[in-house]
Amino acid sequence: MRGVPVGRADSPAISGGVAAALAYVRNHRERFIAELADFVRFPSVSADPRHADDMVACARWLASHLRALRAAVQITPTAGYPIVRAVWRCAAGQPTVCIYGHYDVVPADPVQAWRSPPFEASLRGESLYGRGTSDDKGQLFAHLKALEAFLRTSGTLPVNVTCLFDGEEEIGSPSFAEFLASHPRELAADVTVVSDTPILGPGYPALTYSLRGLLNVEIQVTGLPRDLHSGTFGGAVHNPAQVLCDLVSSLHDAAGRVAVAGFYDRVRPSRGSERAAMVRMGPSDAEILRDAGVDRAWGEPGYTVYERTTIRPTLCVNGLAGGYAGPGPKTVIPASARAKLSARLVPDQEPEEIASLVEQHLMRCAPATVRVTLESRGAVRPFLGDLDHPALPAALAAYRAGFGTEPVFLRAGGSIPAVSTLQEVLGQSPLLMGFALPADGMHGPNERLHLPTFWSAIETGIWLLAELAQSPSLRP
Amino acid sequence: MRGVPVGRADSPAISGGVAAALAYVRNHRERFIAELADFVRFPSVSADPRHADDMVACARWLASHLRALRAAVQITPTAGYPIVRAVWRCAAGQPTVCIYGHYDVVPADPVQAWRSPPFEASLRGESLYGRGTSDDKGQLFAHLKALEAFLRTSGTLPVNVTCLFDGEEEIGSPSFAEFLASHPRELAADVTVVSDTPILGPGYPALTYSLRGLLNVEIQVTGLPRDLHSGTFGGAVHNPAQVLCDLVSSLHDAAGRVAVAGFYDRVRPSRGSERAAMVRMGPSDAEILRDAGVDRAWGEPGYTVYERTTIRPTLCVNGLAGGYAGPGPKTVIPASARAKLSARLVPDQEPEEIASLVEQHLMRCAPATVRVTLESRGAVRPFLGDLDHPALPAALAAYRAGFGTEPVFLRAGGSIPAVSTLQEVLGQSPLLMGFALPADGMHGPNERLHLPTFWSAIETGIWLLAELAQSPSLRP
Repeated sequence: MRGVPVGRADSPAISGGVAAALAYVRNHRERFIAELADFVRFPSVSADPRHADDMVACARWLASHLRALRAAVQITPTAGYPIVRAVWRCAAGQPTVCIYGHYDVVPADPVQAWRSPPFEASLRGESLYGRGTSDDKGQLFAHLKALEAFLRTSGTLPVNVTCLFDGEEEIGSPSFAEFLASHPRELAADVTVVSDTPILGPGYPALTYSLRGLLNVEIQVTGLPRDLHSGTFGGAVHNPAQVLCDLVSSLHDAAGRVAVAGFYDRVRPSRGSERAAMVRMGPSDAEILRDAGVDRAWGEPGYTVYERTTIRPTLCVNGLAGGYAGPGPKTVIPASARAKLSARLVPDQEPEEIASLVEQHLMRCAPATVRVTLESRGAVRPFLGDLDHPALPAALAAYRAGFGTEPVFLRAGGSIPAVSTLQEVLGQSPLLMGFALPADGMHGPNERLHLPTFWSAIETGIWLLAELAQSPSLRP
Repeated sequence: MRGVPVGRADSPAISGGVAAALAYVRNHRERFIAELADFVRFPSVSADPRHADDMVACARWLASHLRALRAAVQITPTAGYPIVRAVWRCAAGQPTVCIYGHYDVVPADPVQAWRSPPFEASLRGESLYGRGTSDDKGQLFAHLKALEAFLRTSGTLPVNVTCLFDGEEEIGSPSFAEFLASHPRELAADVTVVSDTPILGPGYPALTYSLRGLLNVEIQVTGLPRDLHSGTFGGAVHNPAQVLCDLVSSLHDAAGRVAVAGFYDRVRPSRGSERAAMVRMGPSDAEILRDAGVDRAWGEPGYTVYERTTIRPTLCVNGLAGGYAGPGPKTVIPASARAKLSARLVPDQEPEEIASLVEQHLMRCAPATVRVTLESRGAVRPFLGDLDHPALPAALAAYRAGFGTEPVFLRAGGSIPAVSTLQEVLGQSPLLMGFALPADGMHGPNERLHLPTFWSAIETGIWLLAELAQSPSLRP
């Protein structure tokens, strides 16, 4: 299909193509859901080595889905999980858009909290439930279906497209930077689009212009050669689980600030004008709490909840384990205990420096009676996007057309490791056009995809390709 | 065999019976190990309802083992697990000894820390490894083999014997008090012997004259409807796992004292003479730490380690759980978190009062952003035995004969719920003639039974029956 002539700005060919593509989507919704369910069926949990085979199987399924859309597809092995790349060079003289997404998901734990099996997508009400339906298989799939709609109706695409699908996003994309650095020319694009962020709510599209960075730290406290009888030895030895609680507890002061010395030192002061815009465009405290499903906020004093989740850093305990957690009592002094922590970072905090500050803090607090070891990983630098990006008007127009509403600009509290990498290696800000809802339950049990939003997302994807083709500032 | 005439004090019939019984044991050691392995094979974990069938199967196996020794055996159902009772009334005019033990065990977790499967007894070196080999299947079994040795050689026993085997010791013996109260006449005995405590070390027998009480408390912190994405919501809500750590951390001060207001108020001051005797007879700090396998002690200032584990109360975290504990990171704010705590109590602390003080402390510390719920159970009052018990000389003589060493008097840090119950209901102190070693790893992985100590225990059991028959102060 190379060299097929395509329309230019406002060309009737493109508007006709969009109309046909939109009609196609409306006629194939049930199949799209069934295909997404197939995609969700792979327990592609990158954090858990037991799912290594599922990861590879999922990458292969995705590649074959892309090949059916007549893309040139490569599955590139990495030190970790493969990166799936698909290329369509249909539109000579037109810009190239790169779409980044990820096919890995977080673990389904706690499995017993799911109302339906996490890897069997289940349709209830207006939503499709399952791990990855929203983060990020569903959002990624919206773009694939937009591409399919054009390809199956016009036989071509209005712009050149590269898809890059990562298998390690949820574990910090450790292989992605190397992949990007070793393929700089093939991966160069006029604009990179990432759909892996929440919008403001159903019908309220939002372009995310900042992400927080990330640092994962695991604390392990050991000190006993084995679990000890708490009657025989209670009073004799320091309890590693108790020490772990002391350490975790020491990380915050009573007011809600992180108590690690130096933690806030490099946080860039926020401008009053931006804070005012955030109040105007962003979610209210009540809206965020409603999405979280809680009544009361908690956190650093002096900021709105939206600010605390976006322009302020946090330090969070993600998991605790140690000793006996089964039914009934078991009177042991646990031999060891572990906590998983993650920090969300904002400009200009550097993950490595924060790791070092957290380590210094914990080692200063650690008593000599036990051994405290730390493992840091998944470092992601905070991201602040360029609001002068030449493709921004096309992105906003696509959102407007797909959702029928004016999009807003949001900061997001999450982290997408590849976004900082894309910005650093390619020297260009990706555009974060998310399609998730804040209440989708990403990373939690009963994760879901709101189907009306999914249809709007696919339509936005179609309009995006058309708008980019007609964007004068992107003409290569 | 009722009415068979048996010897009196220093009678040649009894000394001949002992000699034959001792020889019998030496000739049947391998079979005894094989039978104990059969007993260990039942995963009779009372804490875990999934093992309910195993509990019943274990009780039946034990009953049939006792029937083979021609006891009158009853399996008495309770609201929980059955109590197995065996009675030999062979010795008219002789005293009756009641032997209490338990066939339930604590869970095998952490299973991966075992070098051999916990419920397949494995012989390595001089020890038999497996859950319950020491606590309490092995110690209970020593008495059964002593009884068997007499019965198979003399055809009778020198005293009347009742065995009471509990199936709920590890969960606080909730049904035992009711059982005892409803069978006061059948269970009346001149002396009750309990073998479920550690001695001082290999070759160093020790009669335990005090136990600590026990109170189990489970803390649950909830506050979120589901695990939340720690990027999206980190900074918005109070983290239940963090609150749990704050609560657990608040239970001790930095010096090692329990920080719950009123916790020590009723602790009976220890007499200087007893503390001096404890230094003389009891283990040194270094010995206890060696048994624990650690280099450094930790705990309440002002006391030796032996004192801290026996005459001073403690509050211990036995387990922590919350959020994601699998491999790799998972950036969630956990919906809830739990800790299992247990307090070891000393005279005159009352479990119910301590439960109330712990609850008041935790509720005072609990922030309004989360919900903290507590569940207390397994209350056991502390036990202080009567050192003027008329059977004490016989017990000491049996230890001396069985181990070839002078026994010492010890306080123990553990708790045996039935011991306080026996004392309260029968108005008489049980004699705690333990056969475990401090380093047996009771409640931990790789629990083991030291076989040379096991043979001494069986011989002690044989001598005990003979000495009780010859004890003038026990003549009914």
